[in-house]
Amino acid sequence: MDIDQYMAELGVAARAASRVVAAAPTAVRNNALLAVHDALDGARDQLAQANDRDLERGRTNGLDAPLMDRLELTPARVDAMLEGLRQVAALPDPVGSISEMNTMPSGIQVGRMRVPLGVIGIIYESRPNVTVEAASLCLKSGNATILRGGSEALASNCAIAECLSAGLLAEGLPAAAVQVVETADRTAVGRLITMPEYVDVIVPRGGKSLIERISNEAKVPVIKHLDGVCHVYIDDGADDDMAEAIAFNAKTQRYGTCNTMETLLVAESKAADILPRLAAAYAAAGVELRGCRRALQILPQANAATEQDWHEEYLAPILAVRVVAGLDEAIDHINTYSSLHTDSIVTRDHGRAMRFLREVDSSSVMVNASTGFADGFEYGLGAEIGISTDKLHARGPVGLEGLTSQKYVVFGEGQVRT
Amino acid sequence: MDIDQYMAELGVAARAASRVVAAAPTAVRNNALLAVHDALDGARDQLAQANDRDLERGRTNGLDAPLMDRLELTPARVDAMLEGLRQVAALPDPVGSISEMNTMPSGIQVGRMRVPLGVIGIIYESRPNVTVEAASLCLKSGNATILRGGSEALASNCAIAECLSAGLLAEGLPAAAVQVVETADRTAVGRLITMPEYVDVIVPRGGKSLIERISNEAKVPVIKHLDGVCHVYIDDGADDDMAEAIAFNAKTQRYGTCNTMETLLVAESKAADILPRLAAAYAAAGVELRGCRRALQILPQANAATEQDWHEEYLAPILAVRVVAGLDEAIDHINTYSSLHTDSIVTRDHGRAMRFLREVDSSSVMVNASTGFADGFEYGLGAEIGISTDKLHARGPVGLEGLTSQKYVVFGEGQVRT
Repeated sequence: MDIDQYMAELGVAARAASRVVAAAPTAVRNNALLAVHDALDGARDQLAQANDRDLERGRTNGLDAPLMDRLELTPARVDAMLEGLRQVAALPDPVGSISEMNTMPSGIQVGRMRVPLGVIGIIYESRPNVTVEAASLCLKSGNATILRGGSEALASNCAIAECLSAGLLAEGLPAAAVQVVETADRTAVGRLITMPEYVDVIVPRGGKSLIERISNEAKVPVIKHLDGVCHVYIDDGADDDMAEAIAFNAKTQRYGTCNTMETLLVAESKAADILPRLAAAYAAAGVELRGCRRALQILPQANAATEQDWHEEYLAPILAVRVVAGLDEAIDHINTYSSLHTDSIVTRDHGRAMRFLREVDSSSVMVNASTGFADGFEYGLGAEIGISTDKLHARGPVGLEGLTSQKYVVFGEGQVRT
Repeated sequence: MDIDQYMAELGVAARAASRVVAAAPTAVRNNALLAVHDALDGARDQLAQANDRDLERGRTNGLDAPLMDRLELTPARVDAMLEGLRQVAALPDPVGSISEMNTMPSGIQVGRMRVPLGVIGIIYESRPNVTVEAASLCLKSGNATILRGGSEALASNCAIAECLSAGLLAEGLPAAAVQVVETADRTAVGRLITMPEYVDVIVPRGGKSLIERISNEAKVPVIKHLDGVCHVYIDDGADDDMAEAIAFNAKTQRYGTCNTMETLLVAESKAADILPRLAAAYAAAGVELRGCRRALQILPQANAATEQDWHEEYLAPILAVRVVAGLDEAIDHINTYSSLHTDSIVTRDHGRAMRFLREVDSSSVMVNASTGFADGFEYGLGAEIGISTDKLHARGPVGLEGLTSQKYVVFGEGQVRT
């Protein structure tokens, strides 16, 4: 197969389909989501057989246990996919709303209409349920999608693609509105991210190295986050119980997610009180502490942190701990080492809370809440295609609105420019 | 000079200054703009001398007349710069507003705060007044700026840079909040657009070839438009007088701007009536017409359009004219050939007006108004740093809001994730 030609064909078809999907009424897009739901529900046997082929090949190729787990489409996971489709179909349509329509001195009325981005390329690793999740959000928001999953899930993704096509066609939408790249050839990814004439934005989901490679090589804008080096700062005068609850939860609720706290900052006035309490709780949970010099004076049992620890996204029961003089040093530390993801202050002081909100340059900034809340569902977005730590366009959890933008619309009555 | 090292130094200083500017109160940023105003007003002699050196070198190097004209800093142009500074200082501050603060089921309150982008790189050609204009918009919106003007204006830009520094320092802001690249070495541009660690976004202003080169090579997001292939579509049943007024104005009000109509589309039912009237008006204004086969049947005096004409941004008194069957063909033509800039329909029909608004995928879509209105001032933005035909982030005229983005802010009372 000529990969360049194959990808260009997908691109041309996606571009044409994107116009049809963007113009399709809300009800048609919602009904297509429900038709995909029914098609998947009716194809459980075929999905299981395709998934078995992927699992079998994975075993042969010696895929590690976490990858094998993510690859598996259990009946419960198919149920979750179906539930997700029903939820997305029920969300409000972001497309077409006009905001801020104002009359100008010339007499024209100027407003902004929310419109789909066009064609969205999704690149992801082994979980085949992402195929349905990403496709449903893109279709709901009026976009066409080209999906490139991991080669280890190719059979599962192709089986899912058939259900997606069936659902689209049942409602009179073009099958090319959602296309799965049906080749394991890795050059397909390189082509997908360098055809701005057909693809408007790339959303990569996966490990840091995958995303780094994609953003370095892409000629198409990328909505991404590389990592989550999240902080909790316990301020001078913070409530002890609240500080302990938030700092414990932000680390231990889940270790492997990007919104997990990786570095704890404590004001020096609080350190002697709060660190021993927290250290006991962390020890009971099996969390290793790596402290700065001043933290080690209070917690001699902790290991010494190196400069590298402040940069580290452990995704593991390890926590870096630093004692800081106060708010200024905490903000400096965060703006130096944070990955612009999520940072939280625990404080009683209104002025310092507001300064933290304004001056910490991250996609989510919190007062008296666990970093674990940085999530599309917790933020009321209804769904999430990813989290952005970029500064243009969407920052933080990206829901349907992040898959759209706003164009200007002008209503005149024959006005001309003088 | 080691350009890599020099640009990295600018970058480090800009990144540090961006934090200070972002945290500076509105009044401090506004007062700094007024202090720059006073510094420029007090340095008129020095500005004129520096500009003379640029003009002298331009003459020696044989710069063409339009470039020489754009290079000149006349007293009237200095007045306009000063007026611009007063206007920008008087605009509302976009930074810090919090919108859509809602309470979630968990009890946390989630909203979005408007924040500066960080460090903005501006790359532009000969007009030295852009230095002040761009710097003022970036400073007002809480960003640090690195400005790279054309080498032909280097002396003028360096003289302006001294006034910018003086104004910033007078209000206690770091001079590095606005830096002018003070070298004519062209590798400086290549470095500026490939240091995402220091620069958050690039705004290029200039000809298509400059912008194309920058967006191809940039490793930093670019807010840009390449060209403006704008259309007016005269719909079946449109009012003749309104159609003539808009189609004439959209072409002839100014020939050299990106919002000028380059292709006129006419519904076949209107063509025989409206085209001869318009052709007479265009002939009187000296506009050359290039028509499709059906247009030539009505306007035998016109030249024949080739496929290339539908792609062309003439920026000149030339107009491509195409007769189409109706709305569908007009939308197809626009979505095929338009540069996603600005397109307008002249119609009496509400349903077709709304379809045009929804289905034409351009940054500005108009009903019964001249494309000439696509402009930040006409849209009430108060100022404009450029026009974006990209789909992410800002589309259309980019004002202060386009130099900011929104981060999530969360207020809790100790909530943790379960």
